[in-house]
Amino acid sequence: MAQELRIGLLGRGTVGGAFTELLAERAAEIERASGKRFEIVGTLRRKSGDFDEILNNSDVIVELMGGTDPARQYVTRALEAGKHVVTANKQLVSQFCDELVEVANKSNVQLRFEAAVASVVPVIRVIRESLAGSHLEKVHGIVNGTTNYILSEMANTGADYSEALKRAQELGYAEADPHEDVSGLDAAAKMAILARLAFHAPVHLDEVSCEGVEDIEPADISYAKEFGLVLKLLGVAERIDSGMSVRVFPCFLYGGHPLATVNGPFNAVMVESEAITEITMSGPGAGGIEAATAVLGDVVSVATTEIEFPEQVESLEIVPPGDVESAFYLHMDVEDRPGVLAQIAEILGDEGVSVKSFVQSGLDENARLVMVMHSVAEKHFWSALDRIAELDVLRRPPRAIRVIEEEFGQ
Amino acid sequence: MAQELRIGLLGRGTVGGAFTELLAERAAEIERASGKRFEIVGTLRRKSGDFDEILNNSDVIVELMGGTDPARQYVTRALEAGKHVVTANKQLVSQFCDELVEVANKSNVQLRFEAAVASVVPVIRVIRESLAGSHLEKVHGIVNGTTNYILSEMANTGADYSEALKRAQELGYAEADPHEDVSGLDAAAKMAILARLAFHAPVHLDEVSCEGVEDIEPADISYAKEFGLVLKLLGVAERIDSGMSVRVFPCFLYGGHPLATVNGPFNAVMVESEAITEITMSGPGAGGIEAATAVLGDVVSVATTEIEFPEQVESLEIVPPGDVESAFYLHMDVEDRPGVLAQIAEILGDEGVSVKSFVQSGLDENARLVMVMHSVAEKHFWSALDRIAELDVLRRPPRAIRVIEEEFGQ
Repeated sequence: MAQELRIGLLGRGTVGGAFTELLAERAAEIERASGKRFEIVGTLRRKSGDFDEILNNSDVIVELMGGTDPARQYVTRALEAGKHVVTANKQLVSQFCDELVEVANKSNVQLRFEAAVASVVPVIRVIRESLAGSHLEKVHGIVNGTTNYILSEMANTGADYSEALKRAQELGYAEADPHEDVSGLDAAAKMAILARLAFHAPVHLDEVSCEGVEDIEPADISYAKEFGLVLKLLGVAERIDSGMSVRVFPCFLYGGHPLATVNGPFNAVMVESEAITEITMSGPGAGGIEAATAVLGDVVSVATTEIEFPEQVESLEIVPPGDVESAFYLHMDVEDRPGVLAQIAEILGDEGVSVKSFVQSGLDENARLVMVMHSVAEKHFWSALDRIAELDVLRRPPRAIRVIEEEFGQ
Repeated sequence: MAQELRIGLLGRGTVGGAFTELLAERAAEIERASGKRFEIVGTLRRKSGDFDEILNNSDVIVELMGGTDPARQYVTRALEAGKHVVTANKQLVSQFCDELVEVANKSNVQLRFEAAVASVVPVIRVIRESLAGSHLEKVHGIVNGTTNYILSEMANTGADYSEALKRAQELGYAEADPHEDVSGLDAAAKMAILARLAFHAPVHLDEVSCEGVEDIEPADISYAKEFGLVLKLLGVAERIDSGMSVRVFPCFLYGGHPLATVNGPFNAVMVESEAITEITMSGPGAGGIEAATAVLGDVVSVATTEIEFPEQVESLEIVPPGDVESAFYLHMDVEDRPGVLAQIAEILGDEGVSVKSFVQSGLDENARLVMVMHSVAEKHFWSALDRIAELDVLRRPPRAIRVIEEEFGQ
């Protein structure tokens, strides 16, 4: 008879339910992979279950409650009590990773959290283990399925933001209150975790600059198609000089970019370093059974390995967002009269912003100008944009969205 | 002063050289990730170095010689001596995985081989660890960069096979003797490894059906574009009923397939199960520094973890290739006279092969017929093809290439 691994489950929502079912369905595979029978010895629900009793009876605590309170207290107590912890909780890990890792190291137990970012897409294990010892330069990707669905839907059907959001809600890809997703905050929490792991340096959630998709208009997407661009909400964590930058923003990509073809609720993350060029991982970014599969992989690892050395943390300054270089797409509706382009070009030139490509087209009595700029420190672009916004020839405020200039493929 | 991890290096070719450099360049990252200083205590080259001495002085043996003789003896002796082994040797692992794993388990040491398949693309770790406890249904992908470069080049430039091969050789993507790559044998060895890991069942290299790219004609690629198809050399390992099938063959994919956009010498592997839908991993499939990075990740894992339970192996029958269902693209040059299509259609109907799409076009006095079939057990398609080949209206032998019918994306 195989030895038992006693699991205490905190939370019995969608992922908790899927995890419970998965353990039953996959009992044979689990025993083959781990030599153990996994047994849920207690489940803490909103209105039932006793944490102390569950803790005492468990070898591993699986935390699927979400939120930081009381998850933080429970996870801390479990680690202090010498229990391994597996969690899918991005809020908890993004805010308290280092505090919890320290407790885990003191108790010589493991804290694993693959499902906290990109669900079953194994970005965390790959960064922490496959690429341990590498010097990663950049991690960027699509880490929020809700907004990726919304942007895909807007691109495919011409729907506006609110229609696309409504469809996402009908399909269960968006919550009734979508704020956390559409504002970019969910992606920001995930990028804070990825940056922490890739660069071995703590990142405070407040240090992640964050823009969402609420203000995206169908025209932004359709005009940009003329340049062969598709719009994605990207999370980007990168080393810049001796510091790092962690940001979330809507961004245009050229069609050949590996992330350009990631559609619907899928997630994808690219990891880059000089030695590896780039590795891209993609897959379903949400769903109970998918997240439960990621949790199961972590529990099997906890059951089969002993980690013999805790990772060492350093510190990296956050580069001020204005100093980060970006390329921009700029869309302006202006009066169609002589001298307008000269005024705009003068401002751009003044601020050191240079134009990569440019399309002008008539629009009744107005002209539509769409420009793609070369990369420049963002503060220069923003100050040019402020000056352009004040020109009286503008029919409406200019619209600026970042662009990744690189073209990929052979 | 950090503890030392003593590495014995077998082989000092491209990957061995890159690995040696990487250890020096990444010393700080390695010590942070592992708590140890990695030291190469001896290198066995073709004409220098003493294996016994290196073995005695090492904690870990890194085998980068390639081939099975004497690599098999050295690795076995290292494992027997209680040394962990990290290898990039696909020949060795594809032929002797189970024998070596057994020795490793007896000695309670680790055998890791991420670089043996798809270089630094972390497919092996993801299958063995992230998805441990999952029930994988299918692993398929592009696991040979040489042939992917050749097919990309043929598609992009219209070059024929021998021209594209020549360019691959000039760029260092193909060996002077390209047989192992272009015949599909290299991909077959990698698929044997992936099938073994995904399905926990040994696969003999002889059991992998294998077709290469030597007979692909530019016209195959250009005609298929009319159907929106791109050609890739795929490795496919899948469960079929209670058995499995492991095959390598050139195959058309629709443009929306995640593997369709993987170009040049890149590799990409998709792992599928009911619970995860699909995870796709892609990146550089070759190159010394990339493979060395994969080897380094394995050595860091060996240095930081203890594996507490060896994986259990089962056995699965190989399904006869004729019983595997595939869809086919079929291209025929025929005399342009009445009744030809009826003859062909009758044979296909007789054998139970049904047509999904069909294009006919004039070609001087001949007609070109291109059909895409629905999936059918291959033996039925092949017997239809044999009968069609005998028709006297055919101007040249018919050309048949498999197609993956699924369309992806939203």
